[in-house]
Formats: sequence, structure tokens, C-alpha cells
Amino acid sequence: MSQKIHTVAIIGCGVIGMSWACLFLAKGLKVIITDPVEGTEQRFKEYLDDAWPTLELQLGSIDQQQAKNYEFVDDIAPRLGSVDFIQENGPENVEFKQNLFKILDQHARSDIVIASSSSGLPSSVFIGKCEHQPDRILIGHPFNPPHLIPLVEVVPHVGTSSVAVSTALAFYRSLGKIPVLVRKEVPGFVANRLQAAINAEAYSLISRGVISAEDLDKAVTSGPGLRWAVTGPIVTNALGGGGGADGFSTRLERLGPAIRGWEDDMHKHRFDWSEEMLSVLKADVAEYLATVEWTQLTRQRDSVLLQVLRSKSQTRED
Amino acid sequence: MSQKIHTVAIIGCGVIGMSWACLFLAKGLKVIITDPVEGTEQRFKEYLDDAWPTLELQLGSIDQQQAKNYEFVDDIAPRLGSVDFIQENGPENVEFKQNLFKILDQHARSDIVIASSSSGLPSSVFIGKCEHQPDRILIGHPFNPPHLIPLVEVVPHVGTSSVAVSTALAFYRSLGKIPVLVRKEVPGFVANRLQAAINAEAYSLISRGVISAEDLDKAVTSGPGLRWAVTGPIVTNALGGGGGADGFSTRLERLGPAIRGWEDDMHKHRFDWSEEMLSVLKADVAEYLATVEWTQLTRQRDSVLLQVLRSKSQTRED
Repeated sequence: MSQKIHTVAIIGCGVIGMSWACLFLAKGLKVIITDPVEGTEQRFKEYLDDAWPTLELQLGSIDQQQAKNYEFVDDIAPRLGSVDFIQENGPENVEFKQNLFKILDQHARSDIVIASSSSGLPSSVFIGKCEHQPDRILIGHPFNPPHLIPLVEVVPHVGTSSVAVSTALAFYRSLGKIPVLVRKEVPGFVANRLQAAINAEAYSLISRGVISAEDLDKAVTSGPGLRWAVTGPIVTNALGGGGGADGFSTRLERLGPAIRGWEDDMHKHRFDWSEEMLSVLKADVAEYLATVEWTQLTRQRDSVLLQVLRSKSQTRED
Repeated sequence: MSQKIHTVAIIGCGVIGMSWACLFLAKGLKVIITDPVEGTEQRFKEYLDDAWPTLELQLGSIDQQQAKNYEFVDDIAPRLGSVDFIQENGPENVEFKQNLFKILDQHARSDIVIASSSSGLPSSVFIGKCEHQPDRILIGHPFNPPHLIPLVEVVPHVGTSSVAVSTALAFYRSLGKIPVLVRKEVPGFVANRLQAAINAEAYSLISRGVISAEDLDKAVTSGPGLRWAVTGPIVTNALGGGGGADGFSTRLERLGPAIRGWEDDMHKHRFDWSEEMLSVLKADVAEYLATVEWTQLTRQRDSVLLQVLRSKSQTRED
């Protein structure tokens, strides 16, 4: 497959597509964009103006000319011959994607990867009409917003070629992203499942009156959440067991019985989405959210996020 | 209850007790420490020397005299008359704690709170021999290390007085800690349950071969983990639903069916602690942990942690 990627196609330029396009431009790529929705080009211009300073804070100064290196087209098909990578961001609708991927597969060069940003649909459900090379199609699921959050989940279907997988991983890495390989198509992939796991227990604790919604959030942001930006669950466990290669097993042996007790209790009180539990949850959450200063909060989040990203890349380079 | 706390007793000065003592000293309190294990005083001196610069990075310059304002005693009982708050950090053993709390309850002044750092035992199981005022006993469970991580879970037993709860909350807040109230004694309290929820799904995904242990950690530290230091699960959900007081409900309505599908699949593939799943998990984790640069990693974690804490307190004060 082509290892040199100069031109990327953005198919669908909503919230996710716009953010991908900004990152591609900041990294010096040419971007060809298509989206049938009226006013998209103007919305993208505004989004780009807003995102550019954040990208400069993250990446250092960028040649301003790069911000202009994009083009909106009505019909992408005749342009696909000059495209080295496709990032699709259309609606999460099986039939829509089946028809779209039939066209992309028909017109894309044989040596490129076609990646879908889909968070919900695995690619196996929408490649049915691809008659040429469905083996270069895979999921490249970003975390919102892609121009800021490094994670990309690369999820092949059973027929995706290993070279398509390695090309996608290498491409995302070259952009400074942190791709992970999800080897099997599972519902929610990985990051959304991990979030769902913590959310389900949070909903249960709040709806059972164990803790208020406000204190639940504090328990994360002032406790375990402070570490998860740097050490993931496995390394955090290992450090809890004294660190080193044996730390993980040590902790499992020492705390295993207690943890299984917690798990059984969590399972017994699992959030069941009943009207009763939902109404307690929603009422408590509404009371909390009414007190949140949203502007200040998102400003604080973005500022801390940028500092963490810079601090992580600095300490990595030490 | 006494609102003025000048002198704190540390009962049990292992890893948790030492860290609490450092924080109390840095905040200008007098600390009386007791621990039957030989060599504890010397170990504490070394721990304090090591922790002090980190505390200064976090809190600004501190009067060096404060670091000397502690005293080790063999028998705490005759000294409890001058103590305004007790933080107990003994072994997690029911009988041991029952006997210890009998003594603390007998000798402590009637107007003070007796808090236990216990992470596993709720206080209801060890107050059985307290004949005076078990209503001032509660759990004040810190997150390790307490001198750095702000979270404290305050967990009353059914007989704890509301004034003891509010005194403990106010005291921890006065130290710059972020206490949360866990209204009912549930196994694992809150933060450990939330961690167990994410860990269980992580173990399942790794043991099923969906993702490598290394990529699992990356999926957290480069994705959702970046946000959990600033926005907890509930506010993160609300922002995902467009923000504002309605964001949470909007997201639940839009994504609820998908989330329930993920939950059902997670439940179906629940990590079962069988030898088979454990051995795959441990093997994959061992391979990953063998590649970790532990010194660099913990240095990076501490550096990022301090930056996040400072950045959060700065933006809070804006």
C-alpha cells in the first residue's frame, strides 16, 4: 500500500469530519471535503478559525498557508484518483453507509485505506455492496474532538487485510495520534465499553441514594480520574501491587477476594434502566447540573487537557 | 463539636498514616503519632523529607518549623485529652480494630471525631465494643497518597451523628482535601467500586483477545482518561449530550438503546475469574509490564498529577 499520504478525503463534514479536517491541515496534508448539507463550507471555515489557535498551542507554530489547503467538492467520485486516504464521517445508518461504501470502493485507488469514523456500526455490516476491495476498509474511530484527543480505535472486519491495518496505524501515528488495535468487532469497541462500565455503576450508586451525582463526579475527578490520564487501569493496578512486572499479579492475589465481593454486590444492584431508577437518577443529576458553570467548566477542561497533553509529550521526550 | 482543630492523632503510621501526617504538618497542625512497629519513627523521618518538596510544589512555601511539629508516643491513651481529631490507619482486621476503637472511644474527648482510613471495613463492623460514643466514629477513607490526592470518602455508619459527619467534612475541606459523602455503607465504598467496574471490563476484553493489555491502557490514557481528571462521568455525559442541564437526559435518550446493548454484551462476557481467563490475562499483562520504564512512568505520573492539581486550583480561582 501507498506509504506516502499527501491528500486525504473527508466524506461527511459534521462535528467529527470538521475536526479531522483541521488536524489533517495542521499536519500539512491536502484535504478534499464533501458534504451534501447546505452551509457546511461556511461552518467549517468558522470551526477552523476557532480550532487553529488550539492546534498551535498543542503543536507549536504552523505555517498559515496550510490552513487554506482544502477544497469542497459536490461529487467526490471523480476526485478519488488523487486521494491517498479516506476518512468517512457520515450518518450512523446501515443502508446509507452500504451505498456510500459501494461508491467509495468503486472509485478509490486500489492502494489506499478507507476508514470510517463510525462509533456504533462495525464495518462488517456496511461492506456488503463493495465489489472491489472491501479488504482495505476498516473503522478508524476517533474520540471527540479528534484534533485534540489522541485516541483512535482501529477496528478491522474479519476480511480486512493486515497491510490495511498497519497502514492505518502508521498513518494515524504519523499525525501524532495514539491508535489502538481492536482485534475483534465488539459492540461499543473498547473505550465506549469502558466508559459504559463506569457509567452503569455511577447510575446505580446515584439512583440507590448511596451518593449524590455531584459527589460521584468529585469522587472521580479528585481520585482515580487524576491518574487515568497518565496510567491506565493495568499499570495503575500494577502500581497498586507495588509496581514492576509482578505488581499486577500481586495485587490480584492480595485484593482478588475483596474485588470479587465488590463485583458481586455491583452485579446484584446493577442499574436496570427501570422508570423508577431512571427518575431518581435524572432528578438528582438535574439538581447538580443546574449548579454547574458550563463556560468556566469547559474552559477549565480544555486548559487542563492541553497542559496534560503537553506535559505528557514533554516527559515522553525527556 | 469542637470546630477548632489544632492537634491530630495518627494511630498507625504505615504508608497511609505517614502520608496523612505529612499533610497535617504542612497544614500547620500538631501531630501525635503512635505505631507499635519498630523503626517507624525513622521511616517516617525519611518519608517526610521526601514528601515535603512535593507538598511545597503543591501548596507554595511552608514554614520549615511545621515539619518538626510531631511527636511519637508509645501509649496514645493518656495523650488523647489534648487531641482534636483522630485519624486511624491500623490493619484491616475486624478484631484488631474492635479492640483499638474500644480504647480510642474510652479515652478520646467527647467533642472530637474518630475517623478510620479503612478502605475495606465499614465502621459498623468494628464499633461493637465502644461503650461511650460510637456516634462520633466514621470512615475517612483517603486515596493513596493522601498528601497528594484530594479525595476522601466520608462514610458514616447508621448511628453516626450528623454533626460528626459535618465536622469531618469541614475538617478535610479545611486541609484542601475534597471529601465526598457516602451515605450508606456499601462494599468498596464508591471510588473502588467505580475502579472495579472499569477493571472488570478491561480484564474481560484482554482475556478475550479483543485488545492487548498495552493498547487497553492507551485507550484510557489517550481517550476518556484525559477528561476524567476534570469532568466526572455525569458532567462528561451531559457534555456529550450537548452540555447544559438537559445534556444528560438528551444523551440518555439518544444513546440509551445503544448503551443497553453494550451493557448486555459486557454482561454476557463478564470476566469470571476462571483459571482460563486469568491465565490469558496475566500472560498478556506480564508481556506488557516487562516493557514499562517504571521510574520514568512514576516520575511522569507525579509531574502530570502536580500540574493537573495546580492547573485545577488556578482555574478554580480565576
